[in-house]
Amino acid sequence: MASSLVRFGVSMAAPLVAQFDELIANQGYRTRSEAIRDLIRERLVQKEWERGDENVAGTLTLIYDHRVRGLTDRLTMAQHEHVGLIVATLHVHLDEHNCLEVLAMKGRASTLTQVSDRLLSSRGVKHGKLVLTSTGESLV
Amino acid sequence: MASSLVRFGVSMAAPLVAQFDELIANQGYRTRSEAIRDLIRERLVQKEWERGDENVAGTLTLIYDHRVRGLTDRLTMAQHEHVGLIVATLHVHLDEHNCLEVLAMKGRASTLTQVSDRLLSSRGVKHGKLVLTSTGESLV
Amino acid sequence: MASSLVRFGVSMAAPLVAQFDELIANQGYRTRSEAIRDLIRERLVQKEWERGDENVAGTLTLIYDHRVRGLTDRLTMAQHEHVGLIVATLHVHLDEHNCLEVLAMKGRASTLTQVSDRLLSSRGVKHGKLVLTSTGESLV
Amino acid sequence: MASSLVRFGVSMAAPLVAQFDELIANQGYRTRSEAIRDLIRERLVQKEWERGDENVAGTLTLIYDHRVRGLTDRLTMAQHEHVGLIVATLHVHLDEHNCLEVLAMKGRASTLTQVSDRLLSSRGVKHGKLVLTSTGESLV
Repeated sequence: MASSLVRFGVSMAAPLVAQFDELIANQGYRTRSEAIRDLIRERLVQKEWERGDENVAGTLTLIYDHRVRGLTDRLTMAQHEHVGLIVATLHVHLDEHNCLEVLAMKGRASTLTQVSDRLLSSRGVKHGKLVLTSTGESLV
Repeated sequence: MASSLVRFGVSMAAPLVAQFDELIANQGYRTRSEAIRDLIRERLVQKEWERGDENVAGTLTLIYDHRVRGLTDRLTMAQHEHVGLIVATLHVHLDEHNCLEVLAMKGRASTLTQVSDRLLSSRGVKHGKLVLTSTGESLV
Repeated sequence: MASSLVRFGVSMAAPLVAQFDELIANQGYRTRSEAIRDLIRERLVQKEWERGDENVAGTLTLIYDHRVRGLTDRLTMAQHEHVGLIVATLHVHLDEHNCLEVLAMKGRASTLTQVSDRLLSSRGVKHGKLVLTSTGESLV
Repeated sequence: MASSLVRFGVSMAAPLVAQFDELIANQGYRTRSEAIRDLIRERLVQKEWERGDENVAGTLTLIYDHRVRGLTDRLTMAQHEHVGLIVATLHVHLDEHNCLEVLAMKGRASTLTQVSDRLLSSRGVKHGKLVLTSTGESLV
């Protein structure tokens, strides 16, 4: 790919540069440009992925406090609206108050992303993350 | 923090810059520097997290082909070596050959990362990702 | 054991006897007494088991309608009171309204039975069953 | 139902009768006949259920030793032959050697029973039990 190179300047605090330099040295990068290009590519691929029509499998990890009034009911209800999309849910009682819930999902990437965003933004959900992956057929 | 600013040049292919510009415009960034600083910070935080001593909860998502000789046995064995760390596993049969497996884990971040790396690098595991999170007590 | 035999009379509707005779013939029993003794023994063993102090593993299957007001919240709360006993929960969204939930548990048989009875008798739980088993060490 | 009553004699060891009498007194039965009729009915209903064409949900609990050569592979393979029937599997690592696995299933009762029998009879599976239930629609 003979596309022209663009060069631009980036500024950041000296300590951040120092930490970044140490990290990329450990990972074996030779230049900052190379490492930054990889960070950008990774982000672009993920974004494209999340908006796509492809059939994917995914897991959504949620951490929440079950004492938040009605949260468990709301999460269960939201999940039942997507029967077929959400295959099964694994629930682990972390402590007296906190729940770890993992949803295993199958469907269009964009739908999975949308449903996940809605669940992640529910009041009482403290943290969470969507992991998307091909359903496997195309992975070799 | 009045730390001095460092300025350095980054070079990348024109199409990549164009896609990056579009993405960060959508996300509301005003400069490339700002967006790149956030990408770097995110990566640093994650790395620190993964190496840490803190007690965390996490999920490891694995996609694999159960036909790879002995893989299922090896994965199960590796998991039993870490009874206590791996709370439970959810297995979804994606199709005739492909498995989605999610491990719910609790323990030291560095141990979770190490066990995950070992499982992810097993021959026959096509894809996977570790999601770490606080066990919840410290999240407000 | 040379314990004395007791003989007593049992009465039941003719069709029930007919069905019972067919069933036990298929299973290879030669007399009704033999089959009834086995039914009784099975029940006694199970009852003893459920009241015991032994450490066991078990699964509790629950079917419920998540629309029953507050049920999901109550079930989650009851489960969090027994963190340590309930290892993990698998939730399957059967249809828009009905949930299948399986709790994997470890602990004293009598405690498992007690917690299960409480969950099974919750308003809105339609059906369910506890399966107890040794934790495996003693099974050969 | 004005069906005629049949009366027949049952013989069993005195200690078994004593234990049975104690159990049914606790449960509130007034006669042995009544308790035995219930035991028989329960068994008949379950057998009919297991042979039926009705769409049901069910869970199969399995306890096994993952060290039995190839067992994990065989169980996984058997499960993948029934993608669609087996919705998801929850795996708990009981100790270094023993696994508790619960399969959540949906499908024809007779098919579920058949698949379960095959898994339960696999060499290395120490114990297990199938719980069948209506998928919920018909339960009020």
